Amino acid sequence: MENKIKLENKLIRTDLVVELIDKNNKNIISKTKDNITITTANVKKDISSQIGKKEGMYITISFDDITNFETREKVGKVLEEELKKIIKKLKIKPKAECLIVGLGNIKSTPDSLGPLTIQKIVVTKHLFALNTNVKDGIRSVSALSPGVMGTTGIETSDIIKAIVDKIKPDFLIIIDSLAALSINRVNKVIQLTNTGIHPGSGIGNSRKEISYDILKIPVIAIGVPTVVESATIVNDTINYLFKHLSYIKNNYDKNKLTITKLDNYQKKIENNNLNSEEKKQVLGLIGELAEEDKKALILEVLNSLNYNLMVTPKEIDYVIEKLSDLIASSINNALHRQITHF
Amino acid sequence: MENKIKLENKLIRTDLVVELIDKNNKNIISKTKDNITITTANVKKDISSQIGKKEGMYITISFDDITNFETREKVGKVLEEELKKIIKKLKIKPKAECLIVGLGNIKSTPDSLGPLTIQKIVVTKHLFALNTNVKDGIRSVSALSPGVMGTTGIETSDIIKAIVDKIKPDFLIIIDSLAALSINRVNKVIQLTNTGIHPGSGIGNSRKEISYDILKIPVIAIGVPTVVESATIVNDTINYLFKHLSYIKNNYDKNKLTITKLDNYQKKIENNNLNSEEKKQVLGLIGELAEEDKKALILEVLNSLNYNLMVTPKEIDYVIEKLSDLIASSINNALHRQITHF
Amino acid sequence: MENKIKLENKLIRTDLVVELIDKNNKNIISKTKDNITITTANVKKDISSQIGKKEGMYITISFDDITNFETREKVGKVLEEELKKIIKKLKIKPKAECLIVGLGNIKSTPDSLGPLTIQKIVVTKHLFALNTNVKDGIRSVSALSPGVMGTTGIETSDIIKAIVDKIKPDFLIIIDSLAALSINRVNKVIQLTNTGIHPGSGIGNSRKEISYDILKIPVIAIGVPTVVESATIVNDTINYLFKHLSYIKNNYDKNKLTITKLDNYQKKIENNNLNSEEKKQVLGLIGELAEEDKKALILEVLNSLNYNLMVTPKEIDYVIEKLSDLIASSINNALHRQITHF
Amino acid sequence: MENKIKLENKLIRTDLVVELIDKNNKNIISKTKDNITITTANVKKDISSQIGKKEGMYITISFDDITNFETREKVGKVLEEELKKIIKKLKIKPKAECLIVGLGNIKSTPDSLGPLTIQKIVVTKHLFALNTNVKDGIRSVSALSPGVMGTTGIETSDIIKAIVDKIKPDFLIIIDSLAALSINRVNKVIQLTNTGIHPGSGIGNSRKEISYDILKIPVIAIGVPTVVESATIVNDTINYLFKHLSYIKNNYDKNKLTITKLDNYQKKIENNNLNSEEKKQVLGLIGELAEEDKKALILEVLNSLNYNLMVTPKEIDYVIEKLSDLIASSINNALHRQITHF
Repeated sequence: MENKIKLENKLIRTDLVVELIDKNNKNIISKTKDNITITTANVKKDISSQIGKKEGMYITISFDDITNFETREKVGKVLEEELKKIIKKLKIKPKAECLIVGLGNIKSTPDSLGPLTIQKIVVTKHLFALNTNVKDGIRSVSALSPGVMGTTGIETSDIIKAIVDKIKPDFLIIIDSLAALSINRVNKVIQLTNTGIHPGSGIGNSRKEISYDILKIPVIAIGVPTVVESATIVNDTINYLFKHLSYIKNNYDKNKLTITKLDNYQKKIENNNLNSEEKKQVLGLIGELAEEDKKALILEVLNSLNYNLMVTPKEIDYVIEKLSDLIASSINNALHRQITHF
Repeated sequence: MENKIKLENKLIRTDLVVELIDKNNKNIISKTKDNITITTANVKKDISSQIGKKEGMYITISFDDITNFETREKVGKVLEEELKKIIKKLKIKPKAECLIVGLGNIKSTPDSLGPLTIQKIVVTKHLFALNTNVKDGIRSVSALSPGVMGTTGIETSDIIKAIVDKIKPDFLIIIDSLAALSINRVNKVIQLTNTGIHPGSGIGNSRKEISYDILKIPVIAIGVPTVVESATIVNDTINYLFKHLSYIKNNYDKNKLTITKLDNYQKKIENNNLNSEEKKQVLGLIGELAEEDKKALILEVLNSLNYNLMVTPKEIDYVIEKLSDLIASSINNALHRQITHF
Repeated sequence: MENKIKLENKLIRTDLVVELIDKNNKNIISKTKDNITITTANVKKDISSQIGKKEGMYITISFDDITNFETREKVGKVLEEELKKIIKKLKIKPKAECLIVGLGNIKSTPDSLGPLTIQKIVVTKHLFALNTNVKDGIRSVSALSPGVMGTTGIETSDIIKAIVDKIKPDFLIIIDSLAALSINRVNKVIQLTNTGIHPGSGIGNSRKEISYDILKIPVIAIGVPTVVESATIVNDTINYLFKHLSYIKNNYDKNKLTITKLDNYQKKIENNNLNSEEKKQVLGLIGELAEEDKKALILEVLNSLNYNLMVTPKEIDYVIEKLSDLIASSINNALHRQITHF
Repeated sequence: MENKIKLENKLIRTDLVVELIDKNNKNIISKTKDNITITTANVKKDISSQIGKKEGMYITISFDDITNFETREKVGKVLEEELKKIIKKLKIKPKAECLIVGLGNIKSTPDSLGPLTIQKIVVTKHLFALNTNVKDGIRSVSALSPGVMGTTGIETSDIIKAIVDKIKPDFLIIIDSLAALSINRVNKVIQLTNTGIHPGSGIGNSRKEISYDILKIPVIAIGVPTVVESATIVNDTINYLFKHLSYIKNNYDKNKLTITKLDNYQKKIENNNLNSEEKKQVLGLIGELAEEDKKALILEVLNSLNYNLMVTPKEIDYVIEKLSDLIASSINNALHRQITHF
């Protein structure tokens, strides 16, 4: 067996631009307030081709625990403000009609964020149709859950294109479940972008692009990572194994060889790492692989086994419920000037 | 006050053609087997304008209790056969592509028959797209739950027209909840027609027509009455009051002035009726009104009170579940020659 | 046929004490603020036997439209305050342990208020078991949805008694769907009582008593009427027919014999009524019947027909969702001093 | 850093006895028919203490894909037969009363198998209470979903003990979601045992024992693994990495260095393995660890990170629906002699 294994150059997928760009890149601005971090990435041509994401703005709102009421209120307000800014930047007018689309499968919990949010959107388009006398400050809004190809048999982008061509909204907002590279970001990040949705997004269902290029109207996408691939957890764990063993080595205590459940363990070990010689010692050939190659190898094994698995937090049902409340409420408040509260 | 009250000519709505045509009409054929009655009405121009329903075939399958497994199996087989006949009569070819649409609101139990059925439809269109090698005898089928205008803001017929124009199916099957004139028919009748869906169908949500005229492809509609208007229960009860009092009069027993819960009470009193003089005596002016005028008066009072009520059996959640199983299974079996069982 | 029909003395059921007591009774106090009316009835021995309800306090909170956010916030605050008062009056201590029970069937929308509320209750009893260090101001709370006899096969009161005997809470709060006499009160009234739940409550499922007498701990019951019997709608309509015809007679306009959809129609006709001679003229023998006899006759006919129907507003699914939010939130806030917000 | 790392003796949990006993153990009998394998393990005292599971019978039904209708029918029949055998072996009489308990949380998909099954159980106990004239061959059956401690605040075993003491059934059947050691068994195994449920079963919620010892009536438990711990997927993947690399080594082809998606890949690599020297070469120190130590190390890292994750197939919602159909139907058929079909 050779020391180096050739692999397909197949990366584990992420929909999050923050996971792909170097934090020190000059086009990234980050600010934190009340434990909520807003990262704005202006992806231009060069980075775009490098990371395989469309040119445009990517705003990432990071937080800790959305099931806490106060955090939820604050994150909701931040999302509302960022949404208003992006609408303004796109020069969308106060009376411009909006179609909101919730992607995903309502019968599969981690993929149900889109359809659940749609259920909580205040629709008004039909009121304008019935009656020209709708209260000032209320925008014409319609909403759609197109389902997934596995349950409709129809390409989701085809359904959206057909409806857009028929009812001619002025802009689109799309909500979707995303996949992340790291379990640390699952249910803890909202990504907002003016670039729409690109092929291969979501949790394993390839779809055609839903964007300005295709629909000829602005497309704002709001997404939350709700799962990681099973390959991710394997890779994350192996990496933490290195940190863990390095930490043990550095904090060696003859009387207590085992450590478990340190307070703030994650933080403590985060900055420990083995050097490459040590990695080789601990994990042999695998330890020597570059990050990308290690991931690809794990993915190859899991794919070959035909495991169609997802890794998700145990409390996912409850979290998705709360995330859809938050997103629907922020959209309702951002779209209608005169809305009071829902 | 005058003896006769003038009324708007506003009838209580029914979607069931059998409730509108005289049973002795020569264009109606009825046969009963295993307690299931199949009534086939060929509605031609003259009757069409008289009853306000489109020209075409209306097949009504009547049964007693769908929650019984054996009845359900039999009714399912009957629906499958009638569906195959109507497909044949419309000269739809074995490889013709079908789009199935479930109308209604999944969040409102009596209106959820359409979307619930869609969840159980076997879709295959995407398999043809991915792979030309689909098993022989499997037809290309796609499925859609467009929602209701109250939750999408979009005219439902617009969504359907947009999708049909985009994906170009060869024919449509639509499933919908209906309204009936009589509580006796609620959840006990399936209506099958080649005429599609017309404005004002369903349980109170007006929609534009969904038919061959609009879509230029055959539209088969399958509907089940799941509610009656509250005016219906009032009117039915008053009519049964007449029968009840007439029965009491005819079966007068000095020793037992009250009757309750006779076996087969409904059958026993069905053929009793008061003559018009007696009706007047019992119910005064109201008793003298023609059936249509009495209904209209009741409807007027209820409408004026702004009551947006429905009358439905207490076990509706369970029955709708079973009806959607039955309809989905019959459609799956009728559309695919090679399907085994679901 | 005789003029007078003897009937079983079987009344249409109501769970609402306000529907049974004369408004002018000296034991009833009523106050209205912000369109919310709080009626406090102190039912003593004499009235108790007269109306067939247990001796105790019955507080009725009446409002208009719970789907409106602001109304919901206000009603929630009122319920919380009334709940606190009743807890104080029962001399329940701040550390007393509470078991909350949601009666009803989660699979039948109008009967799902109890179980849905339970899903939103903050339970804490297990935290006390795990850890003596629970935050001050947090009470020990547990919660239970015992289901209905039709789905468990077990008498619901037996389940509750068994659990109470085992885990020994200091007091009970029970949430249930109720039946009302008038469609005007459906989803528009919350009844709060210190008397528990008595046989025959709910929407047609007889249950044994759940009260202090049986459980030997205080039992507070919170109920909302979510349906009326179909007999109620028939009777209400006949009564409104009288008012309607009386109004027409009094506002007779030769040029416009039909009235429909007057603004505030209900209010306008409310105080119109026919005298008994006119009633007889309009509705014959039926018109002559005393209110109680008329109801009983209608009930007899419907019962004989074996119709197991309910009458409920079309938007019931949405309203029940909002009512359960409101009730759970009020209970959470009333039970825990230190709770912030959910 | 030392070569050998000391670890807490904390194993990854499994509820499946087949994962703990050597296949060649003389107390294990296995037979396969129609691609369904039935393994009967008679766990006696010695093995019991060795594997930490109660003495008794453990029957494991293994199958491939329950979403296939024909497989489902066959597995259902097998489960029914095995259930009948176990009932007979326990000398439970035809008229003995049965309480069926569905453990788990209906709001968390992989943990909802118990409550979902309960919804489909035919209960009859109340019919016996109402009427002594129940059809011969129908047994008295009641059913209960006690919820989970996180939503009730009450120890689940306390609820069950309270109900059993109150209604005094003659035997219990409990349905629960289990955890497996290997992703290969998730949703592909039904375990049936006469030993009840022991502490630490289920997917992470510790519960007290539910067994004959506690309740003094026979307790039959039916369980299906629906998740694996995230540590399992990491460990499984590392093990498959060894097999994968070994396979590559043995099937080395200079012209095609990468293999992906071989047909029957899993079977092909299953019997490949690296020797311990090779393992060390590939995975260093980790490769040298005994299976048990490797698992414990991975578990330690993941636990320290406070990740409360589960790994489950993407189609879990659909599979759980079908599994609950199957189990409920098998129980219904096994308990009632005269039942036809549901």
